[in-house]
Amino acid sequence: MFSKVLVANRGEIALRVIRACRELNIETVAVYSEADVDSMHVQLADEAVCIGSGPSNQSYLKSDRIIAAAEITGADAIHPGYGFLSENARFAEICESCNIKFIGPSAEVIRMMGDKNTARATAFANGVPATPGSDGCVEDAQDGLKVAKEIGFPVMIKATAGGGGRGMRPVFEESEFISQFDAASSEAMACFGNGDCYIEKLVLNPHHIEFQIIADSHGNAVHLGERDCSMQRRNQKIIEEAPSPILGEDLRKRMGEASVNIVKAIGYENAGTIEYLVDNDGNFYFMEMNTRIQVEHPITEEVYGCDLIKEQIRIAAGLELSDHLKSCTPRGHSIECRINAEDAYAGFMPSPGQIELWYAPGGRGVRVDTHVYSGYSVPPYYDSMIAKLIVHGATRESAIARMRRALKEFMIHGIKTTIPFQLSIIDHKDFREGNYDIGWVGEFIKRGEHLELREDHEVS
Amino acid sequence: MFSKVLVANRGEIALRVIRACRELNIETVAVYSEADVDSMHVQLADEAVCIGSGPSNQSYLKSDRIIAAAEITGADAIHPGYGFLSENARFAEICESCNIKFIGPSAEVIRMMGDKNTARATAFANGVPATPGSDGCVEDAQDGLKVAKEIGFPVMIKATAGGGGRGMRPVFEESEFISQFDAASSEAMACFGNGDCYIEKLVLNPHHIEFQIIADSHGNAVHLGERDCSMQRRNQKIIEEAPSPILGEDLRKRMGEASVNIVKAIGYENAGTIEYLVDNDGNFYFMEMNTRIQVEHPITEEVYGCDLIKEQIRIAAGLELSDHLKSCTPRGHSIECRINAEDAYAGFMPSPGQIELWYAPGGRGVRVDTHVYSGYSVPPYYDSMIAKLIVHGATRESAIARMRRALKEFMIHGIKTTIPFQLSIIDHKDFREGNYDIGWVGEFIKRGEHLELREDHEVS
Repeated sequence: MFSKVLVANRGEIALRVIRACRELNIETVAVYSEADVDSMHVQLADEAVCIGSGPSNQSYLKSDRIIAAAEITGADAIHPGYGFLSENARFAEICESCNIKFIGPSAEVIRMMGDKNTARATAFANGVPATPGSDGCVEDAQDGLKVAKEIGFPVMIKATAGGGGRGMRPVFEESEFISQFDAASSEAMACFGNGDCYIEKLVLNPHHIEFQIIADSHGNAVHLGERDCSMQRRNQKIIEEAPSPILGEDLRKRMGEASVNIVKAIGYENAGTIEYLVDNDGNFYFMEMNTRIQVEHPITEEVYGCDLIKEQIRIAAGLELSDHLKSCTPRGHSIECRINAEDAYAGFMPSPGQIELWYAPGGRGVRVDTHVYSGYSVPPYYDSMIAKLIVHGATRESAIARMRRALKEFMIHGIKTTIPFQLSIIDHKDFREGNYDIGWVGEFIKRGEHLELREDHEVS
Repeated sequence: MFSKVLVANRGEIALRVIRACRELNIETVAVYSEADVDSMHVQLADEAVCIGSGPSNQSYLKSDRIIAAAEITGADAIHPGYGFLSENARFAEICESCNIKFIGPSAEVIRMMGDKNTARATAFANGVPATPGSDGCVEDAQDGLKVAKEIGFPVMIKATAGGGGRGMRPVFEESEFISQFDAASSEAMACFGNGDCYIEKLVLNPHHIEFQIIADSHGNAVHLGERDCSMQRRNQKIIEEAPSPILGEDLRKRMGEASVNIVKAIGYENAGTIEYLVDNDGNFYFMEMNTRIQVEHPITEEVYGCDLIKEQIRIAAGLELSDHLKSCTPRGHSIECRINAEDAYAGFMPSPGQIELWYAPGGRGVRVDTHVYSGYSVPPYYDSMIAKLIVHGATRESAIARMRRALKEFMIHGIKTTIPFQLSIIDHKDFREGNYDIGWVGEFIKRGEHLELREDHEVS
C-alpha cells in the first residue's frame, strides 16, 4: 500500500480523498492555491503545499508544480479527483515517468476514451450500441450534411474534443445544418484547439443514465448499477439519483453487461463511468466514458454500501477489489443535490463571498460532503459547488422525503445557494413521479416555475 | 397518520424525532426547559412550548405540563424519546385518557416489563433462560443469603426498581452478603421509593448484548439483530457496535428467536430492546427489556437500512411494519461513540459551558446526531451526552478505521469531551480484536491506560 498520497485537487473531493486515505492509514499531502488556504482540505491533510495563485491555470492545472510538490514531500501516489488533471493523459504519463503512481487508469486508456470519436468506435466494436452517425469525424460541413440526410434529422453535431456543452449543436432542419456545423467547429477550435466534428442521430427526450464500473489488475471487473443524471441545467447535473426511476430490471442487466464488456475489452483498470442516452422506448446509446471518479459517486456508495475512493486507491496499489464489492447487491435509493453558490433567482449568477453561518443537516440517512464551514469565504475562481447533500432511504419515496427534510434543515447565511431551486424541483409532481428527461430543467426554468415557490422555499 | 406530534424530550433524540416527523409530513411540537431555549430541537420544531426551568423535575418530568402543551397545540400523539417519561406507565395512561396517542407500547406492558422481577419471570415462562436466582424478591437479607448459598457465589443483589447501576451490588464472599444487601436495599429505597431486592447468579466476564425488536398491531414481529454494548463505564454505555464481535450465527439465531418469542407472548407493540448477558461459553441470560427506543438505535438502522423512529410512529398510528423491515438483511458493521461533555483526564467530571467551535466529521459512512452547534452552551442540568457519532463500514475493520478517522476529525473547542478517551479505546488491541467484556473499561481506567496516550489524542 502507498505510504503517502498527494491529492491534486481542491474542495470537497480533496477532503473526500483525504478521508479515505486516513481510513487506509495513508499520509496525505494537500496542494492548494492562495485562494484556498482556508479550505478544510488544507487543514485536514498531514502536509500542505501552496502551488500558486487562485486561477486554476496558475495552480491546480500546473502539472509541474504538482509533481514537484509530490517529490518534495515524498508522496508515492497522486489522486487527481475529478476535473483539473484527472483525465489528462499527459499528466498520467508524467506521474509514471517520475515513479509516482497515478490513481486512475493508464495514460493510454485515458487517451483512447478521452477522444470521443475513438471511444464511440471502441464501444461499437464491443457490441455496445451507439447512436447512428458518421463513421468518425466528417471532412467538412458538406460531408456532414450528407451523413445527416442519410440518418435523418434531427441530428447532433459534436466536436470530438468537446465537453461541458461546448462544440455541440442540435440541428432540427436541413436548412440550419451548415451554419450550425460552422458554429460548433469554430467553438471547439477556440476552446479546445481542435475543430473536428462528428454527426450523431439526436435522441429525443433522452435520459442521461450512467453506469459505475470498477476493475482491478487481477481481472475482476464489475458494475455497480446506474445513476440517473437527467436533471441538468445547461449540461450541468444538479440532482442525481440511483437507481434510475425509468430503468427496468431487464434493461439494467443489459446495460450493466454492456458496460462491463467495454471495460474488459479495453483492459480498463480503476473506477470509471460509462454514460448513455436512453430513450423512452428503452433503447440505449453509448455517449462517453469518464476515466475518473465522478462528482455523483456517493449515491452509488450509499446504495451498494461501498467506498469507491478507497477502492481506487487499493486498485492503484495492485490489490484486488474488496470481497464485498465482488458480490454486492443494491439496497434502497439514494439522491444527491449539488449545492452551488449561485442565485437561482438571478439567472444562476455565482454568489461567492463569506459564509456567515453554516449549519448542515444530519441524522439518519443524510451525508454531507463539503470543504466549507461557518466563516469560510467562497473564492470566485472555481466552479460554484460548495457541498454535496446525499440522502439514502429504503425506498425512492422515503429518499425524496429525506432530501426535502435535509434541504429545509440546511442553514446557510451570507451567500445565495441553489437550495431553494432544488427544493422546487424535489417538490414537483414530475420529479416525484420520476417523469423527467434531460430537457426537463430547461423547460421548468423557461416556464418560470422555479420562481413561483420562492416565498415558500427561501432558506434563511 | 398523526397530524402533529409533541416530542416530550430534549437533546439529540428530540431532534431525531422531529426529523422523522418531517419526513413523514407530520407537524412537530417541541417542549423545552428554560435552559434549553437555544437547543436545535427548539429551532427545528414547527412549534415550541416552554414547560419550566432547567432541572428535569421542573420540566421534562412534569407530565401535567407536557400534556397541557399537547392539548394547547392540538398534538394528537406524544413521542417520549428515551429516559424521562419514556418508561413511565402512568404517563402512558394519562396520554391515553387525554386521547393522545403515546408512541410506545401499552401502559400495561410498560408496567409489566418495568418491574424487573416480573420481566424476568415473563421471560422465563416463555422459555428464555434467565440467570439462576431467587423466585421473585427475597423477604429480607437472611432469606437472600439462603438463596445465595443455594445458587453459589458470586451473586448479584438487584433492587427490583433499580436502574443505572443504583440498587445493585455484586457479592463475591458469603461474609459480605448481609452488609451489601442492606446497602443495595437502602439505596433503592432512597432513589426509587422501593427497597425490594432479588438475587441472581453473577455471570463472570459477561458481555452485554441486546436485541432490537419491533412489532406492529397486525401481528408482525421481527428482531433486527443485536448490539454489543459491553463497553461500559459504571454501567453507562460509551461505545456500541453491531453486529457483536463475539456472536456466532447459531447463537444469534437462538437469541433472536427467543427475543421474538417474548415479544409475541406479551403482545408487545412498537420498538423495544431485550438485554442479555452472554458468557464466554455462549450461554445467554435475560437481563431486562427496555420498552422504548434506545440511545444506540442508530447502529441497528445503519446495518439494517431502516428508520426505527419512523417505524415507531407508523406502528403507533396503526400501520403495518414497512415491507422492507419484514425481510431485511444486515449489511456491514456499525459503531457508535457517545460523545459526552466530560473530562476523561479528571475523573470524567462533567464539562458544561459554551462550545466555541463545533466542527463535526462528515463524508462516507459517517452520521452525527446532535442538537449542538458552534456557540451553543451545554447546560449543567442533564446527562452529559452532546452528540452521537455513528459510522458504518463494509467490515468491522473498515468501520473501526472510519470511527478513528471521524473522531480525529472532530473539532470541539471550549469544553472537554470523551473523544480522546474513545480514541484510546478504539486504538486498543483488545477492542480491535473484539476481545472485551463489560468489565474491560473499568480495568482499562484502573490501569491508567486511557491517560498514557493523552498527548497523541488530544483533540484541539
